[in-house]
Amino acid sequence: MRLATVEATPNIAVVKYWGKRDEELMLPNNGSLSFTMDETLKTRTTLAFSPEFKEDEAWINGEKLDEKALKKVIKALDAVREAAGTSEKAKLVSINGFPTAAGMASSASGMAALACAANEVLGLGLDSKGLSILARRGSGSACRSVLGGFVEWRRGEKEDGSDSYAIQVTDENHWPEIRNVIAVVDHGEKKVSSRAGMKQTIETSPLYSARQQYLPKVIEDVKAAVLAKDFNKFGELVMRESNDLHSVMLDTWPPILYLNDVSKEIIYAVHEYNENAGKIVAAYTFDAGPNAHVYTTEDQVKGIKEMLSKIKGIQKTVVCKVGAGPKKLSDGHLIAEDGSVKKHHYDAEKNGIVVE
Amino acid sequence: MRLATVEATPNIAVVKYWGKRDEELMLPNNGSLSFTMDETLKTRTTLAFSPEFKEDEAWINGEKLDEKALKKVIKALDAVREAAGTSEKAKLVSINGFPTAAGMASSASGMAALACAANEVLGLGLDSKGLSILARRGSGSACRSVLGGFVEWRRGEKEDGSDSYAIQVTDENHWPEIRNVIAVVDHGEKKVSSRAGMKQTIETSPLYSARQQYLPKVIEDVKAAVLAKDFNKFGELVMRESNDLHSVMLDTWPPILYLNDVSKEIIYAVHEYNENAGKIVAAYTFDAGPNAHVYTTEDQVKGIKEMLSKIKGIQKTVVCKVGAGPKKLSDGHLIAEDGSVKKHHYDAEKNGIVVE
Repeated sequence: MRLATVEATPNIAVVKYWGKRDEELMLPNNGSLSFTMDETLKTRTTLAFSPEFKEDEAWINGEKLDEKALKKVIKALDAVREAAGTSEKAKLVSINGFPTAAGMASSASGMAALACAANEVLGLGLDSKGLSILARRGSGSACRSVLGGFVEWRRGEKEDGSDSYAIQVTDENHWPEIRNVIAVVDHGEKKVSSRAGMKQTIETSPLYSARQQYLPKVIEDVKAAVLAKDFNKFGELVMRESNDLHSVMLDTWPPILYLNDVSKEIIYAVHEYNENAGKIVAAYTFDAGPNAHVYTTEDQVKGIKEMLSKIKGIQKTVVCKVGAGPKKLSDGHLIAEDGSVKKHHYDAEKNGIVVE
Repeated sequence: MRLATVEATPNIAVVKYWGKRDEELMLPNNGSLSFTMDETLKTRTTLAFSPEFKEDEAWINGEKLDEKALKKVIKALDAVREAAGTSEKAKLVSINGFPTAAGMASSASGMAALACAANEVLGLGLDSKGLSILARRGSGSACRSVLGGFVEWRRGEKEDGSDSYAIQVTDENHWPEIRNVIAVVDHGEKKVSSRAGMKQTIETSPLYSARQQYLPKVIEDVKAAVLAKDFNKFGELVMRESNDLHSVMLDTWPPILYLNDVSKEIIYAVHEYNENAGKIVAAYTFDAGPNAHVYTTEDQVKGIKEMLSKIKGIQKTVVCKVGAGPKKLSDGHLIAEDGSVKKHHYDAEKNGIVVE
C-alpha cells in the first residue's frame, strides 16, 4: 500500500464559473478568477492505493460514502488511474475544517486535495497545469485550488479540455492585505445544486448569453485592478459581477434564488459602509448560497466585523487571508499503515484536524 | 366652481414598464401589458376648478399635501390646463381604497382618475387615446388604467409622445375567469422608488439592453396567450417576465432588491402548486415591492388562498377580477358645493368609500 496526504484550501471566486460547455470534461463556458484561501478553511485528504484493495472506498468527515455519493469520487479516481496507467483500487479519507454545503465550496478543496495526493502517491510528476486539469475533472472550480494566490481559470477552446486550466496571476505575497470576511448565514443544504442550476441557466435564461459576451472584459478589468492593488476598482467589479451572476440565476426557469433576506441586509450594509468610507473598501460576493464573502483589506476587518455583528441571522464570521495553495503532509495521515481509517476529527475551536 | 368625480382602478402589469426614454414626457423604453383591476381596489378623485381659487391644493387620503408632494399633482394639473387652455387653479381630493406604497400602484389609479375627472370637469372631450396620454404625463403606468380589460401601452416612436398610449386588447368580458390574488407582504415604504430605480437600471445594468431586445416578442406572445385564453402559456410567460425584470433590477448598480424571503416562499409555493396541478394554473408577478400578484382563474382561487395561508409573513390576501375601467360618479363627491373638503374615509370592512 502506498499513501500520501495533502491539505488544500477553498478558493472564493470574484468572477464566477457558471455554465459548462462539456458536462463530462467539466469545461466552462467562461473563464473565472479567484483567490485561494489560507488554512483557516481546509480539507485534508489521505489517498492510498494498493493491489490488495478489492474496491474503491471513501470516508468524508468520518462517514463512509454510500454508493451514490461514492460515484463522484470514483469518477475522479478513474481520471487519476487513467493518468497513472494503473487499475489499483483506492481508499480515500477526507475531512473538512469547515461546514459543508451552503456555499462553502468544500468540493473545490476536496477535489484539489485528491488530485495533489494522487500526484504524490502515484508519482505522476504533474505540474500545476496537469494538476489543475485533473482536479477540474473532479469538480470544475477545484482546478483553481491547486494554486495559491490570485488564480485565473482559463476557459480554453479545445474540445479535449487540454487548454482549460488554472494559472497563477499573482502569488499570495502580491497583495497580502486582502482579507475575506465570511458571514455564515445558513448551514442548511442548498435547494438547487450548482451543478443542476448552471445547466438550467444555460438552457433557459434569456439574459445568460448577454452576460457571456462581456465576461472576458470583466476578467481583464479585475486582473488589472488586482495587479494595481486598486481596491476601489476591484471592489466595484466584484460586487457588480456577483449581482450579475445572481441576476441570471433569478432569470433561470424555474428561477434560482440563493440570496435571502440576510444576504440582502449584508448587501445594503456593505453599500452603506462604503458610502461612509467615501470609497469602496469592502466588496461582497455570493456563491451558490446565502453566505456572504466580504473581500476587504486588513485595516478594515474590525469595522466590517462590527458592521456584520449588527445583522441578525449571521451565525458567525470567519476571516481568511490569501493562501499559498495545497501542502503535502509528511505526517498526520488519516489512514494507518495497515490500511485502516484512523480516528480523527476537526476541532473547530483550535481550528485544527486531530488524528488519534 | 365646476367639479367632477371619477373612480379609477389600478392595473397590474404582466409585461412591465421599467425604463424611460423621456423623463419629462414619461415615454417608456418598452411597451407593456396589464389587466385593469375591478373596484375591489380603487381611487376616487374629485377635481374642481374655479377662477376664484388662488392656488392649487390637494388632499390625498384625508391629508393635505405639502409643497413637495403637491409638485407632482401640479405637474399633472398643468398638463390638464395646457389641454384645456385655462389658467384656473384647482382643488383635488382623492382617496385610495387600499394601502399606498409597497407596490400597490396607487399612482396609476390616482393619475388615471385625475385625467378622467379633468376631462369631465373641463369638457375636454378626450377619447381613450387622449385620456391615456394625459394620464401618462402624471404617472407612466397610469396611462393603462384609463381603459378596462386587457390593455397594451404601446411604446411609440415619436419624440412628442403622441403615439405612446394605451389601447384595449380585450375588454373585461373576454376572459372573465381571470383573478388576481394579491398577497400583501409588507406595507412599508419602498427603499428605492421605481422612478429612481428604473433610471439607475438603464444607466448601469449591462443586462438591460438584452432584455429590451426580446421584450417586443414577449409582448406579442402574451397577447396571443390571452386572446387564446391559454393559461398554461400565459402563466409561464408572466412568471418568466417578472423574474427577468427583477434580474435587471438586481443587476443595477447599486443593486435593487424588491423581492424578500416571503416573496421567495411565494415563488417556490406557486411552482410547487403548478407541479401538483400538472400544468400552470397560477402565475406570480412582482412589481417594485415584495407583494405578490398571483394571476389565476376563478376555479383555483380557493386552492391558491389555502396555499398562501401557509406562508408566514403574508398580512392578507385580496382577490380582484378584471375591471371595466374608470367610472364617472354623479354623487359621492369629495368636495362640497362651497368648495370645502367633505369629511370622508375608506371603510375597509365594507370595501367602500364613505362621504359624510
